[in-house]
Amino acid sequence: MTDQAAPRQWPAGFRASGGTAGLKPSGRPDVALLICDGPHAASAAVFTRNIVQAAPVRLSRAHLASAQGRCRALFVNSGCANAATGPEGDRRAALVTASVAAALGFQPFEVLHNSTGVIGVQLDTDKIASAIPGLLTRLAAGSVDPFATGILTTDTHTKTASVRVTDSQDRSATVTGVVKGAGMIHPDMATLIGAITTDATLDPAALDRLLRAAVDRSFHRISIDGDTSTNDAVFALASGAGPTIDETALQEAFTSVTLSLARQVVMDAEGYERGLEIVVRGAPTPADALQVARTVGQSLLVRTAITGGDPNWGRILAAMGRAGVAFDPARACVTANGLPLFTDGAPAATPREQLRRAFSSAHVALEIDLHCGGGADRFLTCGLTKAYVEFNAEYTT
Amino acid sequence: MTDQAAPRQWPAGFRASGGTAGLKPSGRPDVALLICDGPHAASAAVFTRNIVQAAPVRLSRAHLASAQGRCRALFVNSGCANAATGPEGDRRAALVTASVAAALGFQPFEVLHNSTGVIGVQLDTDKIASAIPGLLTRLAAGSVDPFATGILTTDTHTKTASVRVTDSQDRSATVTGVVKGAGMIHPDMATLIGAITTDATLDPAALDRLLRAAVDRSFHRISIDGDTSTNDAVFALASGAGPTIDETALQEAFTSVTLSLARQVVMDAEGYERGLEIVVRGAPTPADALQVARTVGQSLLVRTAITGGDPNWGRILAAMGRAGVAFDPARACVTANGLPLFTDGAPAATPREQLRRAFSSAHVALEIDLHCGGGADRFLTCGLTKAYVEFNAEYTT
Repeated sequence: MTDQAAPRQWPAGFRASGGTAGLKPSGRPDVALLICDGPHAASAAVFTRNIVQAAPVRLSRAHLASAQGRCRALFVNSGCANAATGPEGDRRAALVTASVAAALGFQPFEVLHNSTGVIGVQLDTDKIASAIPGLLTRLAAGSVDPFATGILTTDTHTKTASVRVTDSQDRSATVTGVVKGAGMIHPDMATLIGAITTDATLDPAALDRLLRAAVDRSFHRISIDGDTSTNDAVFALASGAGPTIDETALQEAFTSVTLSLARQVVMDAEGYERGLEIVVRGAPTPADALQVARTVGQSLLVRTAITGGDPNWGRILAAMGRAGVAFDPARACVTANGLPLFTDGAPAATPREQLRRAFSSAHVALEIDLHCGGGADRFLTCGLTKAYVEFNAEYTT
Repeated sequence: MTDQAAPRQWPAGFRASGGTAGLKPSGRPDVALLICDGPHAASAAVFTRNIVQAAPVRLSRAHLASAQGRCRALFVNSGCANAATGPEGDRRAALVTASVAAALGFQPFEVLHNSTGVIGVQLDTDKIASAIPGLLTRLAAGSVDPFATGILTTDTHTKTASVRVTDSQDRSATVTGVVKGAGMIHPDMATLIGAITTDATLDPAALDRLLRAAVDRSFHRISIDGDTSTNDAVFALASGAGPTIDETALQEAFTSVTLSLARQVVMDAEGYERGLEIVVRGAPTPADALQVARTVGQSLLVRTAITGGDPNWGRILAAMGRAGVAFDPARACVTANGLPLFTDGAPAATPREQLRRAFSSAHVALEIDLHCGGGADRFLTCGLTKAYVEFNAEYTT
């Protein structure tokens, strides 16, 4: 079983800090450091699938391999993505990890690194080097706030989640996650960066399994605008300060934390007004269910209808039909917050005023049953708003 | 060679009319009829690939097969899509074609039919039946305007194009096209409906080839919002009132007409402010080139940057990288209206003020060279604007 643990606290074995290097014109915090340097520390990461990958993403991938999953520090800067910066960008990312490693007395490959901010601009490594001593001085166990603040870009608030899990043999562990949100604005393009931490003792392979399964069910099931960042990465670090506990129980905690963080990311999307969740059942396969759910969730017409509180459900049917999944429209059923929209291939008789209320609620949950198999999945997004367009069109570089 | 023919005229052998059946609350024209009843008439059509297909789309597909490409009339209504209407919708679509056929003295399967408007509402066939006698009375050769007006939904003006083509043996033909635009608003969802006509004498198989090749290079290369309508269809009708001419010359005319219409559709998109064209070269295959061009053209972040006149080209790189096409970012080059943005994998040195002017022009042309093959293609769209969101969110059903 899992319980919400005291929020905003790192698990045992972690220290972290945040600071301001001066990378952002706004002068807000822009650097963050997390370390777990016990003898049993393990690390893992899930990186963006975009083939245009930021220099720190490529470097972290290499470091994780060199360290065989035994990295001990994560350094993140916001304000500059260090993406599409060519060989000079690679050189600067390496300089950053070398500086952090030297200050900590680690090998460079023991340091993971990511950046978030505008693309195509070289990272100011002098400013970062100047900020490192202060970060080390302030390293502390306990509150996640300094780290969670240092990684933010256009987020309006920090996003954290923590769970305490106890397995059947009464062994306990804490899982705490911190993430910066999606929503791309200038300075932008590096959407989701997260750190999921635990005090459980785990080997790197097990940590990798836990992270991938949790991310797949959470961050891979949300979208704000369908774009895949050049810098997306979620890191996992296990300090080994606690016991080894049952992996199934720990998986539940990892998934619970990442699901909470994923919801927080969507609800802090640029221009967020109303949530949209799509549950698909009865698809030929689970992959088909996800494909239908994603297609509906990414349809601009569905998303603008949600913003308008408009029960224009024909748009949902149109999106389902172009998902590339074979189903029989004559057997399909769609409901919104439990109210039938479309039943067995024909319009349902639900009074329009009831539908309008459902579409005007804070969270619209669509349930789609294709009645042609056992595949099911879900997807979370939000209405597309004028504020989103304004944010992304009018904040110029 | 092809020349722009006198616009707004049907080719020889066609008669058409438009009218108002009262299907639209606005009281605007909502029905249109086009016939070519000579002994050598041929017909073809390209239908939406959405598997949720409107009743008239499924009916027209069947009619085209039954008539072996010898349909002689096209009846279109706007104001109601007759999609997602179940068996009752099928019955009503059949009733419409039967009524039109009876009035013309044709077999029902000689009548093609399409509908455009709100989804999930049954078509008022009584109103249509009442409008048919007037449509027949007003049937006339010459101007395309009455037909072009009767098929409009949210378009702000009619869209027509006409070309006169002469082959190497001095045989001439006219190709005239009429289309209603994309842009989905309530009452909506049936985006593109078009009729491409010629007086050339052609067998149905040749007409089908000409239409498919032309549509593939035009309507299949544009997007307003990435949604595929339940009702999209482009019909081709050849009257046979003119000679048989060289198919290569005729193909050029078909493509020229459909390209012109496709551009008109994009420039009349809901909330249109600025055009965006993406040309991709050097891709592994032509399909890869199209995939990259489409992904960039459908990226909300690229499209909002275009709206803002913001040379935030990192968004272009990010979209390229998630297109699912294998290329080496270190060799990629991107220009905007001829100005280098990204050269051989690194930021170009073009002054920011020059880039800003390019991104603020009426039409932004991006050229992407992946330098990894000979595949090329192009895609046309426009910036995503607040007006688009407003249009689609605030016009409620």
